[in-house]
Amino acid sequence: MEGFAAPLEELIDSFSALPSIGRKSAQRLAFHILSLKDEEAEKFINSITKARSSIHRCPVCCNLTDKDICRICSSPSRDKSTVCVVENPKDVNAIEKTHEYNGLYHVLHGAISPMNDIGIEDICAKELILRLEDDTVKEIIMATNTTVEGEATAMYLSRLIKPIGIKVTRLAYGVPVGADLEFADEVTLVRAIEGRKDL
Amino acid sequence: MEGFAAPLEELIDSFSALPSIGRKSAQRLAFHILSLKDEEAEKFINSITKARSSIHRCPVCCNLTDKDICRICSSPSRDKSTVCVVENPKDVNAIEKTHEYNGLYHVLHGAISPMNDIGIEDICAKELILRLEDDTVKEIIMATNTTVEGEATAMYLSRLIKPIGIKVTRLAYGVPVGADLEFADEVTLVRAIEGRKDL
Repeated sequence: MEGFAAPLEELIDSFSALPSIGRKSAQRLAFHILSLKDEEAEKFINSITKARSSIHRCPVCCNLTDKDICRICSSPSRDKSTVCVVENPKDVNAIEKTHEYNGLYHVLHGAISPMNDIGIEDICAKELILRLEDDTVKEIIMATNTTVEGEATAMYLSRLIKPIGIKVTRLAYGVPVGADLEFADEVTLVRAIEGRKDL
Repeated sequence: MEGFAAPLEELIDSFSALPSIGRKSAQRLAFHILSLKDEEAEKFINSITKARSSIHRCPVCCNLTDKDICRICSSPSRDKSTVCVVENPKDVNAIEKTHEYNGLYHVLHGAISPMNDIGIEDICAKELILRLEDDTVKEIIMATNTTVEGEATAMYLSRLIKPIGIKVTRLAYGVPVGADLEFADEVTLVRAIEGRKDL
């Protein structure tokens, strides 16, 4: 008579199916869910259904939003001549936290990865090209990850966009601020030396 | 304009409120939930509501079950004269996995912990005493955790039960099988020496 009662096992399986949740964590979460008060459980389920029903991609920048047009695209104070291209909505948040960037974004929702069978048509690249049809955008900042996939995506897109006559830039590579040089990998150091600046 | 859209933030907060889920994990889970197909999301929510509505405590042993009386209590092949007292439903599973124990269980759903304001009335101790009213049970095996709280609970319950004339035993302490002696803590080693057996 191993194992828990069937509905509890199903609940554990549901949690196990979530990313980075192992069997032990799934058990802990399932027991927690069972121990919740009715209104707490209802709130948990509501947050799932509400997010799933109201969150969609902004038709302009493809970032996730609950508005018709996302907060950033619809803000009159943002500089509409610069578009920062990122892989994921989390990257938008990371850049917003710097409070230094006042342009718009474009979220690709992924990167080209032939190994995983993800091509240019599987990411929101078409939407980016469509945004460049009028003359508003003057510069595209490629802020995809500095992984092989991110680099390939940045390169591919820049080859599409440059012929339109729009400036395409890439985030600077280098040693992270606050890092010990001895722990920086060789490629990063080479890029940091190549990109050295006058003091 | 930091942060995600409100419903997405609420979903992330919901996941953050779960045990051992940090902010980063909660974000990952929330994005995963948004990326699910409708039927997958429905299955996830159904597993929560179904488990919450059908899982309850067995009126005999207080283990979690979806039956009127749990599978173990209602099994005719189990030895009804022995009751193994554990803190949590997971402990029942752990002992069942040994395939060596054929008695019944009693799940306390916790342990006495004055530090956390958990007294004897907050755990399923009353239900255990009620089970001893007829003469069926001959032995109680205390299998609470070997923590301070588990020890205190075992001690407290044994003082309640022994006067009724029922044998109360405790799981043996000692070095875990397959463990290196050098990594065993002093208290465990002392207990292992005290409990030594003739070869």
